[in-house]
Amino acid sequence: MSELIATYLLHDEKYPEKKAEEIALGLTVGSWTNLPELEQSQLRKHKGRVVSIEGLPSANEDRSLIRIAYPTVNFSNDLPAILTTVFGKLSLDGKIKILDLQFDDKLKSLLPGPRYGIEGLRNKLNVYERPLLMSIFKGVLGKDLHFLSEQLKEQALGGVDLVKDDEILFENELTPFEKRITAGKAVLQEVQEQTGHRTLYAVNLTGRTSKLRDKARKAAELGADLLLFNVFSYGLDVLQELREDREIGLPLMAHPAVSGALTSSSEFGFSHSLLLGKLLRFAGADLSLFPSPYGTVALEKTIALSIARELTKKDNFKKVFPVPSAGIHPGLVPFLIGDFGVDSVINAGGGVHGHPGGARGGGLAFRQAIETNLKGKLLVEGAEQYPELKQALQLWGNAEVSV
Amino acid sequence: MSELIATYLLHDEKYPEKKAEEIALGLTVGSWTNLPELEQSQLRKHKGRVVSIEGLPSANEDRSLIRIAYPTVNFSNDLPAILTTVFGKLSLDGKIKILDLQFDDKLKSLLPGPRYGIEGLRNKLNVYERPLLMSIFKGVLGKDLHFLSEQLKEQALGGVDLVKDDEILFENELTPFEKRITAGKAVLQEVQEQTGHRTLYAVNLTGRTSKLRDKARKAAELGADLLLFNVFSYGLDVLQELREDREIGLPLMAHPAVSGALTSSSEFGFSHSLLLGKLLRFAGADLSLFPSPYGTVALEKTIALSIARELTKKDNFKKVFPVPSAGIHPGLVPFLIGDFGVDSVINAGGGVHGHPGGARGGGLAFRQAIETNLKGKLLVEGAEQYPELKQALQLWGNAEVSV
Repeated sequence: MSELIATYLLHDEKYPEKKAEEIALGLTVGSWTNLPELEQSQLRKHKGRVVSIEGLPSANEDRSLIRIAYPTVNFSNDLPAILTTVFGKLSLDGKIKILDLQFDDKLKSLLPGPRYGIEGLRNKLNVYERPLLMSIFKGVLGKDLHFLSEQLKEQALGGVDLVKDDEILFENELTPFEKRITAGKAVLQEVQEQTGHRTLYAVNLTGRTSKLRDKARKAAELGADLLLFNVFSYGLDVLQELREDREIGLPLMAHPAVSGALTSSSEFGFSHSLLLGKLLRFAGADLSLFPSPYGTVALEKTIALSIARELTKKDNFKKVFPVPSAGIHPGLVPFLIGDFGVDSVINAGGGVHGHPGGARGGGLAFRQAIETNLKGKLLVEGAEQYPELKQALQLWGNAEVSV
Repeated sequence: MSELIATYLLHDEKYPEKKAEEIALGLTVGSWTNLPELEQSQLRKHKGRVVSIEGLPSANEDRSLIRIAYPTVNFSNDLPAILTTVFGKLSLDGKIKILDLQFDDKLKSLLPGPRYGIEGLRNKLNVYERPLLMSIFKGVLGKDLHFLSEQLKEQALGGVDLVKDDEILFENELTPFEKRITAGKAVLQEVQEQTGHRTLYAVNLTGRTSKLRDKARKAAELGADLLLFNVFSYGLDVLQELREDREIGLPLMAHPAVSGALTSSSEFGFSHSLLLGKLLRFAGADLSLFPSPYGTVALEKTIALSIARELTKKDNFKKVFPVPSAGIHPGLVPFLIGDFGVDSVINAGGGVHGHPGGARGGGLAFRQAIETNLKGKLLVEGAEQYPELKQALQLWGNAEVSV
C-alpha cells in the first residue's frame, strides 16, 4: 500500500499517543473501533496509522515527535490535496508543526522535480567548477528601462552569472515585463560579445494566476533566460504547473517572499527544510532562495543547512541550487563555500552595488574571492593580487580574519 | 495619492522607529536621504512612509505596533503583488506579524468581494430571521455514492440549510465530483418535495489549479448549489478568480485548511482577522469557516469575534457569513447567537451525526434550539416541548445551565 508519512512536532501535548491516534483516524476514516467488521475491512486501505511516537528531551516543555502514515489512495495526486490532508484542519489544532513528508517512489513519480536543476543551469552557463554568482537589481521602482539596462550591464561586466529582478517589481508602465526581457537580452548579448562572459537574467513573473502561463510562454518566446517567481504569494501547485508546461520550459527561481509567515514559528507551521527545500524541489524549482545564516535577515545556520540538504541530497529528482541570501559580501565567500559547497549560488545585492567600484567592481570582487578560495588561498592573499577584492575586504571586513 | 496601509506587530524590537523607517524605504524605493534631489522628486510618489509607531504595554517583552503606508502605484492590482509587497521579504525579517491592511476605496474598487454574501445566500434559501444551520458529511473516505446520498438525505430531513463536503474528500472513483453534484441534487430535490425544506450542498472543488475554473463551470452547469474551497492550499488569488468568473457564478465557501500555519503564532504570520476575515471577504468568499471559541480545536473568543467582525462590518463589499466551527452541539446555540448574531452559520459535524436520533434528530435538535433561543426562551424550556432537543442536552450538556 502506498503511503505518505508525515512527521510532526508537538508542544505541550500531554498525551502524544492519544493525539497521534486521533490524527491518524480523524484525518482519514474518522473512527475505527466502533465500526462493524465488514466496514473495517472495506475501509482498511483508507485508514491512517501511527508510525512512531518519540519524546524529545527539553528543559521546560513537553515536546514530542509523531509520525503518521496516510494512504495515498485518500487523496488526488496534487499538492493542494496533499497539504489539505496532512496539514489542513490539523494546522489549526494546537501547537503542531509539520517537519517532514516522506513520499514513496510511486507518489514521487507523479511530481515533476526541477526541469534543469544544478546540472542543467551549469550547462546553460558552461560553468562547472565553482559556485555561481548572482546579483540583484537595486532601487528599481519608478525607474525606466534605460536605468535598468545600465544597471544590468554594470552587473554583467562584473562577471556575475545571474541577475535577478527585485521581487517587488511588478507589471508597470516604465519597465513592463516583455520590454525588460528584450532590453535585458540585448544588453547581455552586448556584454557577452565584448567580454565573452554570459550572464542570465531572471525576470519576475507576476500578475493574476490564470494569466501566468501565457505570460511565461511569451517570455520563453522572447528568449527569457529564467523566471523569478514569488511561489508563496500564489501556491506550490502554481509553481508546479509552470514547471510542467513544455511551452514554457524555462528554469524557475523560487523567491521565499511570504514564506516567513509559514515557517518562522518553532511551534506552528512548516519546517524550513520541508517548505523551502523538499516541496520546492518536488514541485519543480531550479533555484531556491532563503535567508543566509550570516546577514541581518538571518536564519539559524542549522536551519539554512537543512534547506540546502533537502535541495541537493540524492533523490529521484534533479538537484536544486541553494541560494542563501541577504547580508552577503565578498569577505563571507569562504564561509558560503565551506557551508553550502561549490554547488550553490552566492547572491548579493548591497555587497555588489555598494562596492567603491560600483556593481562591476562588486561582481569582480566576488569572483576574485571565489577564485582565491577555490585555489586554497586566504582572501588576504587574493587581495594582494586583486584591487577590487582588497577594497571589498576593507569596506565590509573579512570573516576569515575576524572570526 | 492612493496608499495601502499595513499594521504590523513587532516583538523584541529595541528600535521600532528605525525598523519602521527601514521597512518604509526598503520595501519601496530602497534608499532616500543619499539620493540627489532630482531623483527624490522622481521617486517621491513611490516612497513608503511611516504612519505611526506605538509602544504596547507588556510585562516581559518589547512589543510595538507600526503602521506603514505603501503607494499603490508600486504594485499591480492583484493580491499576490500586494502580499509580496507588504509581507514578502518582511515575513522573514525577525519577529513580525501583519495585523491589518487598510485598503482605500480606489484599491477596493479593483477587488470583487462576495458575489452573494449573507443577503444573497438568504435569498437562495428564503430564510431571513435566524442563523443558518450547516452540517458536515462524516466518514466518507472509501464510501460509495449510495452512502453519501443516504447521509445527505438524513441531514436534509433534519432541517439543515447547508451541507458541506468533508474538505479531505478529493476526486475519487467511488464518489466523483460530478456524480456527487447530480446525486446530491436529486436527493435534496426529493426531500424538498417531501418536506418543503430546501437544503443546499457545498461540493468540494479540488484538483490542479489550472483545471479548477473549468471544473467549477461544469459544476454550475450541473446545478451545483455552492463550492467548498480549500483556499490556503491554493492561493487567495485563485479564490478571487473563481469569484470573478461569471460562468461559475456560484457561492464560495472558504475552508481554513492550512491557514493555521499562517495565523497561529502570536509573533509571526498573519492575524486571523486579516486572513480569514478581511482578505477572504475582499477576494470573494461568501462564507468563511474558522475554529469556534467553544470546541476542542478552539480559538480565543476575542480572535474568533475579530474574524466575524471583519466579515460583517459595514464596508464597500457584501457581508460574509461567519461560520465558527468545531465542537458545536445544540446546547451551545445561545452562545453562538449571543456571540456571532443571527447573521451567522451554526455548523456541526458530531453534534448532528452523534445524536441518538441520527443526523435527522441532530438537525432537528439544532433547529429547535435556534427557535427556542430566538423566542427568548431558555433551552430547558424548549426541551420540554421538543424530544430531540431534550436528548441533545442530555447527551452534550447545556451551556446555559453549566456556565
